[in-house]
Amino acid sequence: MAKKEIQNELMEKIVSLCKRRGFIFPGSEIYGGMANSWDYGPLGVEIKNNVKSLWWNRFVHRRDDIVGLDAALIMNPKVWEASGHLKNFSDPLVECAKCHHRFREDMLESELLKKAECPDCGGKLGKPKQFNLMFKTFIGPAEEQANVAYFRPETAQGMFVDFKNVLDTTRKNLPFGIAQIGKAFRNEITPGNFIFRTREFEQMEIEYFIRENEWEKQFELWRKEMHEWMKLLGLEAKHIHELEVSEDKRAHYSKRTIDFEYDFPFGTSELYGLAYRTDFDLSSHAAASGANLKYKDAETNEEFFPHVIEPTWGVDRSVLAALLAAYKEEGEGDAKRVYLKLPIRLAPYKAAVFPLLKNKPELVKKAREVYLSLRKKYFIDWDERGNIGKRYYAQDEIGTPYCITVDFETLENDTVTLRDRDTAKQKRIPIAELDAFFHHEIYS
Amino acid sequence: MAKKEIQNELMEKIVSLCKRRGFIFPGSEIYGGMANSWDYGPLGVEIKNNVKSLWWNRFVHRRDDIVGLDAALIMNPKVWEASGHLKNFSDPLVECAKCHHRFREDMLESELLKKAECPDCGGKLGKPKQFNLMFKTFIGPAEEQANVAYFRPETAQGMFVDFKNVLDTTRKNLPFGIAQIGKAFRNEITPGNFIFRTREFEQMEIEYFIRENEWEKQFELWRKEMHEWMKLLGLEAKHIHELEVSEDKRAHYSKRTIDFEYDFPFGTSELYGLAYRTDFDLSSHAAASGANLKYKDAETNEEFFPHVIEPTWGVDRSVLAALLAAYKEEGEGDAKRVYLKLPIRLAPYKAAVFPLLKNKPELVKKAREVYLSLRKKYFIDWDERGNIGKRYYAQDEIGTPYCITVDFETLENDTVTLRDRDTAKQKRIPIAELDAFFHHEIYS
Repeated sequence: MAKKEIQNELMEKIVSLCKRRGFIFPGSEIYGGMANSWDYGPLGVEIKNNVKSLWWNRFVHRRDDIVGLDAALIMNPKVWEASGHLKNFSDPLVECAKCHHRFREDMLESELLKKAECPDCGGKLGKPKQFNLMFKTFIGPAEEQANVAYFRPETAQGMFVDFKNVLDTTRKNLPFGIAQIGKAFRNEITPGNFIFRTREFEQMEIEYFIRENEWEKQFELWRKEMHEWMKLLGLEAKHIHELEVSEDKRAHYSKRTIDFEYDFPFGTSELYGLAYRTDFDLSSHAAASGANLKYKDAETNEEFFPHVIEPTWGVDRSVLAALLAAYKEEGEGDAKRVYLKLPIRLAPYKAAVFPLLKNKPELVKKAREVYLSLRKKYFIDWDERGNIGKRYYAQDEIGTPYCITVDFETLENDTVTLRDRDTAKQKRIPIAELDAFFHHEIYS
Repeated sequence: MAKKEIQNELMEKIVSLCKRRGFIFPGSEIYGGMANSWDYGPLGVEIKNNVKSLWWNRFVHRRDDIVGLDAALIMNPKVWEASGHLKNFSDPLVECAKCHHRFREDMLESELLKKAECPDCGGKLGKPKQFNLMFKTFIGPAEEQANVAYFRPETAQGMFVDFKNVLDTTRKNLPFGIAQIGKAFRNEITPGNFIFRTREFEQMEIEYFIRENEWEKQFELWRKEMHEWMKLLGLEAKHIHELEVSEDKRAHYSKRTIDFEYDFPFGTSELYGLAYRTDFDLSSHAAASGANLKYKDAETNEEFFPHVIEPTWGVDRSVLAALLAAYKEEGEGDAKRVYLKLPIRLAPYKAAVFPLLKNKPELVKKAREVYLSLRKKYFIDWDERGNIGKRYYAQDEIGTPYCITVDFETLENDTVTLRDRDTAKQKRIPIAELDAFFHHEIYS
């Protein structure tokens, strides 16, 4: 097979596995779906939560210099005026004079565009107009301009708008950051590629406030942090590429932007971003709101707008990249197996516990004891269906790192078999050591 | 002071403390706020995350019979047709024929209503019309009826719409539940009382699928679970009241609903709800979508729509009730202190570590070691400002259960003082025992 076919096949396998095993379902599927939306099922919500708590733990709980925030999704529209989103966050669209359907100019095939003909009805296409990508709604009962509000298109502005409140309440000194995880919404004309681009998505974002003269050093530190994070997700360095965004493609206020691209099956595409935003955001919001958003140096009493380094992570893209990187096939024919080589911290279940035979009450009883005891601390699956081989296959496919089987020897000496997902090898381990084993695997 | 004044004062104290210490800020405050929206600051996001993970841990990770879900906020509009929200989820409003302002009928003072006069301009008020409480938006560039979509007004429908996908992928047997945490949106005409009623809020919800003949038993089990949960938040039983919702006030499909009310300072008001929804939801969605949403009994092959018990928790109301229950004042004059008696699992910081004196490098060094070592596992604060008394005061106010001070004795025998928030008493404890102490406090 050509490389592209293999790649497309991989994407199809992931989408199919996600649906079949309860990671990710098409949104509103029983009603024919809904505009490329996706729901995280029982296993998907676990992996997504694991990504988010790993991130929060690493950047908020384990660091002195970053604090969390959870701002409302609907902000005062003046925020989007000051940030430039109302004016600039748009795509050029052409409208058909006859059927009024609209199309993204750059997506129309050039032949039609030359003739300025509508691909839907053949009518005449008008000149391109800017279409804002924010989702608009109305607060209160009257649908009039004064009540317009927008669902945030990014989490970043919450950190700038709340900068002073955070500074006043935490009394942090520069450099320090504000971190946020939450949903954002973009009325994309062409979403697609599974959970890669959706109209509703989740971001993890840090605004890291610094002194201007240290921006290059801090940018470099965050560049390294991003790579460390990608390692934690299990992504291979060879599939990660840094794209230096050229000046003409950067936002006007950004002095440097790097896109971290990943080799997705559908092409090398943006996974994360890192931008040096200067003091554009705080000074714009200060000017627009009249609030004092300056930082006062405790020693020199100097007042100034901090500059900002902004690392941004997509939650859904993190999940997708981690699943793609983890997907492995091994063996042939009957010996063939599929497994998700997920890092244990991302895996939905940390282990599964089985009784060797389901019709032996003494095995089931003992296995339940092991299961319930471990489940007090870790998220553990239980399976007594089919035979051991089928159970291994089923757990491999959902990325469970270890399978624990209670057999007749267990009843004699309180040991169990512990089977490793990646090597498919087994060893015996005392039940009394299981807790310490998993604690070590997960936390060190 | 009369009881009501004391109560109002309590609410003001909580709102003020929340702003001053970084729990909760007014949303978009630098732009004059935004329609009673609130942002969770550095400490607020921690307490909110703690509520959510305590809940997820208790109901999803520690139980065999409940699985998680995270469905898209924007669902196919047909969902809201089948659920009845498009038709029935509304408030009656009267509109002024002159200025077109709209008012909730029951909120107009009766005198004006009798004269049918507009309180804003004196114009004539029309007959009441139903105003739908869902936030409307448009998918794609054209603002036309075919593209209308709604932000979900509740999390519940996600569990019904995905019922078949969850059932097929988890192969659960009845009774089993689907749990979801997420944002929901209601275009309330009169939000208020801090984070009690907001247009954007977060729910924790379980749809628990059962056989019809066991509904009374299951309802009773969930009633008990709700009370157990409220204990975990630190709410006192005497402030919790069950309100049996009478038949004429229940949704037509509900055979029994209990509101769990809490004595908030602004009045006794709904905190949580528990409803027996019969098989209304699954049968409605099956009829509207044509999908087979029946459950097939593995032994009898009987096919039927499961019935549903639905316990619902508001996340924001949980945070508010926990803060109100925790707020304590003690002593008089200089000896007066305010503390938040939060259960350790909800408290933002589990402990704070101080060097007795900040200008003694050997104390600071040792204290940093203790701090960094504990922070590997728990979320811990560091403070070296002011004197010990002020630090205790500051930690009490944000609910930190323990303060650990490194003093000169520490340098001799590796013990520290451990001060208890609630009793304000201190004891010495070996550094080597701190980890086990916190592990026990938090997890048992």
